[in-house]
Amino acid sequence: MPFVTIRITKEHVTSKQKAQLIEGVTALLQKVMNKNRATTFVIIEEVETDNWGIAGKQVSEIRNQEK
Amino acid sequence: MPFVTIRITKEHVTSKQKAQLIEGVTALLQKVMNKNRATTFVIIEEVETDNWGIAGKQVSEIRNQEK
Amino acid sequence: MPFVTIRITKEHVTSKQKAQLIEGVTALLQKVMNKNRATTFVIIEEVETDNWGIAGKQVSEIRNQEK
Amino acid sequence: MPFVTIRITKEHVTSKQKAQLIEGVTALLQKVMNKNRATTFVIIEEVETDNWGIAGKQVSEIRNQEK
Amino acid sequence: MPFVTIRITKEHVTSKQKAQLIEGVTALLQKVMNKNRATTFVIIEEVETDNWGIAGKQVSEIRNQEK
Amino acid sequence: MPFVTIRITKEHVTSKQKAQLIEGVTALLQKVMNKNRATTFVIIEEVETDNWGIAGKQVSEIRNQEK
Repeated sequence: MPFVTIRITKEHVTSKQKAQLIEGVTALLQKVMNKNRATTFVIIEEVETDNWGIAGKQVSEIRNQEK
Repeated sequence: MPFVTIRITKEHVTSKQKAQLIEGVTALLQKVMNKNRATTFVIIEEVETDNWGIAGKQVSEIRNQEK
Repeated sequence: MPFVTIRITKEHVTSKQKAQLIEGVTALLQKVMNKNRATTFVIIEEVETDNWGIAGKQVSEIRNQEK
Repeated sequence: MPFVTIRITKEHVTSKQKAQLIEGVTALLQKVMNKNRATTFVIIEEVETDNWGIAGKQVSEIRNQEK
Repeated sequence: MPFVTIRITKEHVTSKQKAQLIEGVTALLQKVMNKNRATTFVIIEEVETDNWGIAGKQVSEIRNQEK
Repeated sequence: MPFVTIRITKEHVTSKQKAQLIEGVTALLQKVMNKNRATTFVIIEEVETDNWGIAGKQVSEIRNQEK
């Protein structure tokens, strides 16, 4: 009964990509740990770039500088 | 000073239901653990069905199949 | 398929109390939200009093002052 | 490589305040723990006042009573 | 810069299995989302079976019944 | 009523450093957001280096290579 949380920045993540992450993590836990797929939960949390900081800066600011 | 996080799918949860969850969890911690109500925090996180996976599938997909 | 995390200080929590918290939260989600008991997960995280701060102080320090 | 999550109520938090929280926490970890700024992550989670409970009540209800 | 948390029960997880989970999740995020490996964090949280509940019961109790 | 979680690797963190992190984060939230110190919670989670991955590798392995 694993519980996985994936936090990524909210930048045009498609539903198909989310489905691939969910299936991929579930398969990985089954393969490595022999965990039951039926009770494997995966949650994807999309975080606004204004709300995520790295190296002391907002990702939104970093993205602006990259332009 | 307990801190409780309740993650549920975002599917028409009413404000009254949220109030009942918050009061219910707070009362439970007081009853079982003798915790102080004043410093008991409860956070409800509603997760989009596209972002929650179980058994390798998105809940949004499971809901579609149930229709 | 709710997922609940209960964080409390690590101060002589008994296995019976943990069982009561788990059953209590599961019953609450069934009653208020009609959630399926079979896929309700509850995790209890016990945090050392040295690692929990409130009002800018470690709980371990607060406990010492209470003596 | 610290990872910090700051949960606050969603009540008119400005982008500048978020930037100050991110820089402040990153500087604190560098100063106290000598942690590398480049791999310090900070996430700010803004929680609706309907979804945050304290002392058994929703913050939205507490805010209404304060008016 | 994804941040992934994997919660599993603390039941004889080997260091090699942990390494495989970390590499597997990192590779998955690179493949599906084109995320930078260098800033992908993965944390594994092992939870005591006494502290994990499913369907209203402690996993420790469920394991005892399975014997 | 902010709630802050600080995750760092478990590598000889002293009680004094924890006290400084708790006081520092509490003061920061008061200064930037005018948050009430009395209801500011800070939790420090120390994670074993075997259980923390970055760039696809366990920190324990990275530390061994640094020697």
